[in-house]
Amino acid sequence: MSKLVQSIKEAIALSGLKDGMTVSFHHHLRNGDYVLNMVMEEIANLGIKELNVNASSLFDVHTPLLNHIENHVVTGLATDYIASGLGRAISMGVMEKPVQFRTHGGRPSDIALGRTPIDVAFIAAPTSDPMGNCSGKYGPSACGSLGYAFADAMYAKKVVVITDNLVPYPLQDWSISEDYVDYVVTVDAIGNPKGIVSGTTQITRDPVGLVMASHAAKVIEASGLLKDGFSFQTGAGGASLAAAKFLKEIMLEKGIQGSFGLGGITGYMVDMLKAGCFRSLMDVQCFDLKAVESIRSDARHQEISAMHYASPSSKSAVVDSLDVVILGATEIDTDFNVNVHTDSNGYIMGGSGGHSDTAAGAKLSMIIAPMFRARLPIVTDHVHCVSTPGQDIDVLVTQGGIAVNPRNAKLKEKLVGAGLPVLDIHELKEKTERITGKPQRLPKGDRVVAQVISRYGDLLDNIYNVPQKA
Amino acid sequence: MSKLVQSIKEAIALSGLKDGMTVSFHHHLRNGDYVLNMVMEEIANLGIKELNVNASSLFDVHTPLLNHIENHVVTGLATDYIASGLGRAISMGVMEKPVQFRTHGGRPSDIALGRTPIDVAFIAAPTSDPMGNCSGKYGPSACGSLGYAFADAMYAKKVVVITDNLVPYPLQDWSISEDYVDYVVTVDAIGNPKGIVSGTTQITRDPVGLVMASHAAKVIEASGLLKDGFSFQTGAGGASLAAAKFLKEIMLEKGIQGSFGLGGITGYMVDMLKAGCFRSLMDVQCFDLKAVESIRSDARHQEISAMHYASPSSKSAVVDSLDVVILGATEIDTDFNVNVHTDSNGYIMGGSGGHSDTAAGAKLSMIIAPMFRARLPIVTDHVHCVSTPGQDIDVLVTQGGIAVNPRNAKLKEKLVGAGLPVLDIHELKEKTERITGKPQRLPKGDRVVAQVISRYGDLLDNIYNVPQKA
Repeated sequence: MSKLVQSIKEAIALSGLKDGMTVSFHHHLRNGDYVLNMVMEEIANLGIKELNVNASSLFDVHTPLLNHIENHVVTGLATDYIASGLGRAISMGVMEKPVQFRTHGGRPSDIALGRTPIDVAFIAAPTSDPMGNCSGKYGPSACGSLGYAFADAMYAKKVVVITDNLVPYPLQDWSISEDYVDYVVTVDAIGNPKGIVSGTTQITRDPVGLVMASHAAKVIEASGLLKDGFSFQTGAGGASLAAAKFLKEIMLEKGIQGSFGLGGITGYMVDMLKAGCFRSLMDVQCFDLKAVESIRSDARHQEISAMHYASPSSKSAVVDSLDVVILGATEIDTDFNVNVHTDSNGYIMGGSGGHSDTAAGAKLSMIIAPMFRARLPIVTDHVHCVSTPGQDIDVLVTQGGIAVNPRNAKLKEKLVGAGLPVLDIHELKEKTERITGKPQRLPKGDRVVAQVISRYGDLLDNIYNVPQKA
Repeated sequence: MSKLVQSIKEAIALSGLKDGMTVSFHHHLRNGDYVLNMVMEEIANLGIKELNVNASSLFDVHTPLLNHIENHVVTGLATDYIASGLGRAISMGVMEKPVQFRTHGGRPSDIALGRTPIDVAFIAAPTSDPMGNCSGKYGPSACGSLGYAFADAMYAKKVVVITDNLVPYPLQDWSISEDYVDYVVTVDAIGNPKGIVSGTTQITRDPVGLVMASHAAKVIEASGLLKDGFSFQTGAGGASLAAAKFLKEIMLEKGIQGSFGLGGITGYMVDMLKAGCFRSLMDVQCFDLKAVESIRSDARHQEISAMHYASPSSKSAVVDSLDVVILGATEIDTDFNVNVHTDSNGYIMGGSGGHSDTAAGAKLSMIIAPMFRARLPIVTDHVHCVSTPGQDIDVLVTQGGIAVNPRNAKLKEKLVGAGLPVLDIHELKEKTERITGKPQRLPKGDRVVAQVISRYGDLLDNIYNVPQKA
């Protein structure tokens, strides 16, 4: 018995893929991924049409998808994030059917519940054995965690592992086990290591970013959550990392040992683990090489599946035990609804990822953002698109003040008590508009180009096309 | 959010357990298990009746089940193995409905396929955190692998983790993750460490056993399978271990590095790993303390789920890549059908466990057994009960000769070529009967007390009651 097949083409043929079916991909190779394009090209060559592509995220490296969309090879798209290049085309109306946006927890939940069945999952695996025991930790294209690929492997009817590092059976320390895998294909390279993981993101030196970060750390300290057992997730942005740096200093000074760091893991979180700020890291995705090295070599740094990370239909997920998450926003409205899907011109350039999941789960969910970007205020009356509902956001931290969601009156009390510059969000909006002026409301097109589906599976908002100038 | 509940009673109540439902248990605590009895006592106290119990194996420590059977608390039993004390009662007809015997691979397969749905799984966990991330490797009742509990956790409607070693969230190096767990209960002790794992089983010193073991090693050597990449499973019996010892010597002498050792793992397999005979161990169950220590501390020694081990409905299982398995038998017939369910008087005293699964998967499946026990020949015309079909058995090794299944003519050629004492199985039977005399055929009762269900889910044989003398 062998699962090794000669080519991606052969694997597609054996999988029984037919017109109208759904194929899936994970995004751990990020902007270095070769696999989605290689597979879709073979599918196109085979003349298979009208497929749904369910990808945990799409990056600009996946721009060839646009050809497949134009040629009706791909007519449906479900994903949790779309980078700006591809997103712009979607916003211009390249697809007939709206894109379905989900969250990193909602995607595996809907897969597990059978709402979004997958016919054939293609799993880019930095290392695999001939029976499909595979891992992201080892090999020339190592990406660390394969967290987002577990649901695809477990629930797809057919599973194809594609690797550029075939090792003898059995691979030790597998992530996805052979009992889920139908076929294994070797290729020269599954990705470009330079694009797979970024180098270390620099902590911001921008004075505005540093003020925001300092506020953020003080909010966490004042919240009462910063004590032994503290758990934390933050993004890879410069200001978020600066907040983590200030937090680390407070934790070391006070001798606080947190329980876990969560999420997409950066080298900075690895530093916090090594400094004793956390007992462990729970890693659904590695953001940089330091994180990849750590998950490979440090037993305290553990891989989690997306179900374990954030699925609302799991019996519980790690986000449910999370104390504090620091999140970004392109806009936030006076009801604390957050937009992370579209940019200031209304073009798609992102997605929820784990935004809504962590916001829903964390005891304190904080948006950190500058008061304005390019003279556009962060606070608006109504966000162009609701990515995360305001009920799940506790506080907005800017350089010009901190706005607490009225739903969390106790937090406001604590922050005021700690002498932090707390403002009503309407005040913060007005304060900002005194600097920037009142922006014009963005025009919306008349056609839905994407649906934002909440982590629980219901429609949260629609994203409309961006009307093009004549 | 907390999953911690005050007592087993509370967990049962919260689980919604009702008359006629199915509860499940795993057997990693073996004859030291307290959990099945504690849970069943609470269920009985709550007045719940007519339950099905699906347990991966049952030991004599579980004899209190007989009371629950008599009181109609338990009316259905599904398991892969029943020890002799309980087995005797079953054979005497204590249950109205026949027991369903499955294999260690067939059990998770039938659970995953929905053929044997579980309402509430009770998972004895030597260590757990409050959200149910749990492990068998750590704690005062450590048992090592939790391989047989994965299917229960993944597919039961409700999952209750019962532990005597609660640790802060999150447990590192969990085996079963919180996303499958509904409730967590702490108790004083989940088992008696003395019964959980045996001490080291001694390699046989019995001259008959040593001859068998030496034959066995020579058969493996002559088969052509003993080369780099060799994989191997053996049981914990004295002669099996002696065979492993001879094999180890050959491997070290010839500088052969095997790929993996599989199965229920003993300290002897750990020694082989350390000596370099294998690159890794794939462990569905630890048989002794040395194995428990090894799976905890040696990354080459990996836990596998029962699906990964042996399920015929997995995309593949490790048994499918196995070269050689050494298995036992209470009887084998001239068609090579093997009985491991009943003893020489027809009483239930075992079960397939992984017998049929490894026999079906391995390239060479060998039965090792003495020509006779207490003057009863090992070879018969028809086994009292077919546990593993003869088509999956390649060779029978006894001290008085080696019988090869005619289906494997090439193997016979090789063994004859190697000068091994090969006999036709009918000759071996006659040779034995010249010593022992021809035994009387066992009387069968008229009532089916157990069904032997093959790993694929179909009925393989029936076990009848043992007629009692007046």
